[in-house]
Amino acid sequence: MIERLREIEPSELTAFVDVLKKDLLARVSEKISHLESSLAVAELTIVLHYLMNTPEDVLIWDVGHQCYVHKALTGRLIDLETQRQKNGISGFLRRSESAYDFFGAGHASTSISVLAGVCLADESTGLIRKRVAVIGDGSMTGGQSFEALNHLATLNGDTLVILNDNNGSIDPTVGGLHSEGNYKGYFQSLGWDYSYESKGNDIPSLLESITTAFHNGGKRVLHIKTVRPHLSKPRSYEPATTFQWWAAEKLREILHKDESLRILSPAMFSGSGFAPLREIFPKQFIDTGINEPHTVTTAAGIVAAGGRAWVHIYSTFLQRAMDQVIHDVALQDLPLVFLVDRAGIVGADGPTHHGVFDLGFLMDIPNVTVWNPRNGDELQAMIYQAWTIHNELNGPLFIRYPKDKTSCGLPEEFRTHSWLMEQNSNSLMVSTGHITSSVQSGLFDHLHLGQIKPLPLNLVEILSRYNNVLVLEESIGHGGVFGAIAGMAADADLDLRLVKRKISDAFTHHGVRQELLKELGLIP
Amino acid sequence: MIERLREIEPSELTAFVDVLKKDLLARVSEKISHLESSLAVAELTIVLHYLMNTPEDVLIWDVGHQCYVHKALTGRLIDLETQRQKNGISGFLRRSESAYDFFGAGHASTSISVLAGVCLADESTGLIRKRVAVIGDGSMTGGQSFEALNHLATLNGDTLVILNDNNGSIDPTVGGLHSEGNYKGYFQSLGWDYSYESKGNDIPSLLESITTAFHNGGKRVLHIKTVRPHLSKPRSYEPATTFQWWAAEKLREILHKDESLRILSPAMFSGSGFAPLREIFPKQFIDTGINEPHTVTTAAGIVAAGGRAWVHIYSTFLQRAMDQVIHDVALQDLPLVFLVDRAGIVGADGPTHHGVFDLGFLMDIPNVTVWNPRNGDELQAMIYQAWTIHNELNGPLFIRYPKDKTSCGLPEEFRTHSWLMEQNSNSLMVSTGHITSSVQSGLFDHLHLGQIKPLPLNLVEILSRYNNVLVLEESIGHGGVFGAIAGMAADADLDLRLVKRKISDAFTHHGVRQELLKELGLIP
Repeated sequence: MIERLREIEPSELTAFVDVLKKDLLARVSEKISHLESSLAVAELTIVLHYLMNTPEDVLIWDVGHQCYVHKALTGRLIDLETQRQKNGISGFLRRSESAYDFFGAGHASTSISVLAGVCLADESTGLIRKRVAVIGDGSMTGGQSFEALNHLATLNGDTLVILNDNNGSIDPTVGGLHSEGNYKGYFQSLGWDYSYESKGNDIPSLLESITTAFHNGGKRVLHIKTVRPHLSKPRSYEPATTFQWWAAEKLREILHKDESLRILSPAMFSGSGFAPLREIFPKQFIDTGINEPHTVTTAAGIVAAGGRAWVHIYSTFLQRAMDQVIHDVALQDLPLVFLVDRAGIVGADGPTHHGVFDLGFLMDIPNVTVWNPRNGDELQAMIYQAWTIHNELNGPLFIRYPKDKTSCGLPEEFRTHSWLMEQNSNSLMVSTGHITSSVQSGLFDHLHLGQIKPLPLNLVEILSRYNNVLVLEESIGHGGVFGAIAGMAADADLDLRLVKRKISDAFTHHGVRQELLKELGLIP
Repeated sequence: MIERLREIEPSELTAFVDVLKKDLLARVSEKISHLESSLAVAELTIVLHYLMNTPEDVLIWDVGHQCYVHKALTGRLIDLETQRQKNGISGFLRRSESAYDFFGAGHASTSISVLAGVCLADESTGLIRKRVAVIGDGSMTGGQSFEALNHLATLNGDTLVILNDNNGSIDPTVGGLHSEGNYKGYFQSLGWDYSYESKGNDIPSLLESITTAFHNGGKRVLHIKTVRPHLSKPRSYEPATTFQWWAAEKLREILHKDESLRILSPAMFSGSGFAPLREIFPKQFIDTGINEPHTVTTAAGIVAAGGRAWVHIYSTFLQRAMDQVIHDVALQDLPLVFLVDRAGIVGADGPTHHGVFDLGFLMDIPNVTVWNPRNGDELQAMIYQAWTIHNELNGPLFIRYPKDKTSCGLPEEFRTHSWLMEQNSNSLMVSTGHITSSVQSGLFDHLHLGQIKPLPLNLVEILSRYNNVLVLEESIGHGGVFGAIAGMAADADLDLRLVKRKISDAFTHHGVRQELLKELGLIP
């Protein structure tokens, strides 16, 4: 399709983009969560590929929410019908998928850093080509965007950053930069030339602005205003079915009792299930922007100043704040509760978003407590317990739960561990998290760990009763619960045959969560 | 001393600060690496504590390099004589050390986030007080500073950010913001009021500027120019004694052959040992600023664009870029070599800086290779090998080395593992990294792993020959080499008694590296 695009006259572009949008909508409509972001840049996408000689010229998309028209245009229109499904294409950018995907993305604010890399590489190889990054106003709140603008300003080579300003990403954009509306002053202070195009969905205007920008060269930002169509309803979770919904229910109860508690999120409240609560307790929910390091340190600052704070964060984005967890929270003995959402395999979003690293990383940090509920009942008990013991904590407490369905039955008390089956077998299955609920009873005893760090005090004694111990956890890596139990067995000189079931040492592709868990051997 | 300060007249402050500076210099002089940064803010420190009612009012110092006058003034003048020594005070800010250390710091760019937390807490508790963060121009290149300025601008509460501009931190400050000199435009674009004080070492000028700033309130930046005295010689490593020196020697050989290679560092070249090389190959060394996420993604961008890049980074700062290692490098199969400096216990800098997490974190990421040399010979062999295989790599390669002395003997070839003693014992010691060199030969066989990920293919067969295996590694956490070997033993159903020697699950205090390693049971 891209060859055809490059053969037509400028006057035919508007018709071209209208046909493409219609075709796209007919094929995918409700299936793509970020389709609106992509449709908002349909005209921009067409004009960029029309004026640039991609893939030789470099076009970098930030995050990937804006990439569906780009995918359609670069040979993947039909593939979009099965995107994010097993064996289908990715919902994000992926280098292995197409030469037109210059750089992979799924997390925000990396594109301008990549652009800096391209400038440095092209200087060393002598290559002269067009270099463009497209980034949304939401991604601009991430500090890495600033780092990259600041550094890139001092490098050689023409580069164009297109700021796609549609007033928000998943949540509305927060922060002084956006509310002041003085992007011009911001970019100029960092050494960038700036121009503005108000008609970001108008092909002739874009043709002119972008042609001019390429002609002028230098370090240049073109700020364009685009409009997102409203296709889908706001997200919400079907009542009483998901970990997210049960978490929100318990939090509602707590917030009714506790005016002082602040819940911080790096721009992910809309996926949290807390959106309805935010309406009721607007002062207590604080969206910091897409900036995980800042979110975590701010929460630590609240606690250091005598306030109370919890952080809601997706596991995959917590990877961005590991140093802050270590340096600003754990090392400083600060009591802070983290609700780690999307812990484990996330399904359709795939390898950029699977929350498979946090369990291992967190368990390796001193002074940390980690809880891993098996179902909605236990999650609710943990959330309530966290609230009651918050002030006695001497460090961070992480409650991890997956993007998955679960039910609640009878309210339960928090327990660090619980026997699901004890029948004096000489084999023990130790499991943690939601996959505990899928274990089929058999010839072994079965112990569920709600708390995986620190391990329950009597676990050594329990382990010593068995010959065979199988550890089952939804996590990657060499440590985690398996490593902790192996270490415990070594330290206590237990003679155990250990078996491990965890995610193997490879990136897991996208697909349906339950199917992926089966493939990984974690559920039957 | 702070009580005395608050009793004197403004006209006596200059004499007060001069006496304090002299006293400080007499006591510590050459012993403190960042004393210059602290002396540059001596007047500022005195004026702030004079005008503020600390510790009830909140004074936050970024990084901690500027904190020595603050420490002296707040009851720790004599303690500074033994700072960074065992049982002495920390070289950085530490909450447990003094109520005047409102927030701990050792890594850059966290202070404004803490300030945001204080505003949020004070709003919830109704507290009205002065709130100040002091941050250097170097720390301002870190994206978290931007994130915090951007978000804090939209919160309630008066806050004052003092930008201490002395033209650099450890290395000269890079980036468009600093070179353009338009800090005013930058802060205003984010919604902050801005004023400038050129006489940052003059007490009357500071008294007036800061009094005015407090009086005006709001979200306010006071940009002050200060001058750092030149006390110490530029750092350099004694030839032929350290890992850093041997690394630089091998790199020199490579750079003579390879014009295309780019070495990136987040503002830490001066500690790397590469400073002399930078003079010879100025185009090939790229200081990105204090911005680890950007550094890593930029390097990935260089490689994606057909260039060649290595990253030099301290282990403790690599914690800030774990998501970029996962999302931008490992997941995208990009060949990138990391020289991970200060891996392991760093000694005097203490718990904020010990490089004890990266080994465990990195080994948990798919598609990663990790090398851990035992001495200078092996380090040089690894660096050369990394260069020769760079283009064949399908992911990141990490070469980790400590801040320690080592010697070189005969040049050696790279080997993934090497037998140091093989005498048909039924016990095996497996060790990795520099502590391998301290293992005393005994009744066990001894295998050194130069490559710890992936583990050597024949390791299962080797392990199967033994009854007892002791794993020795300079790393914290449940995974690492111990966890990997425990997993290998479980998967292969080996009947092994494992013993683990690694850093226990606690933050390690500061002191002399060799003594700390002894205390931790890692060397005899």
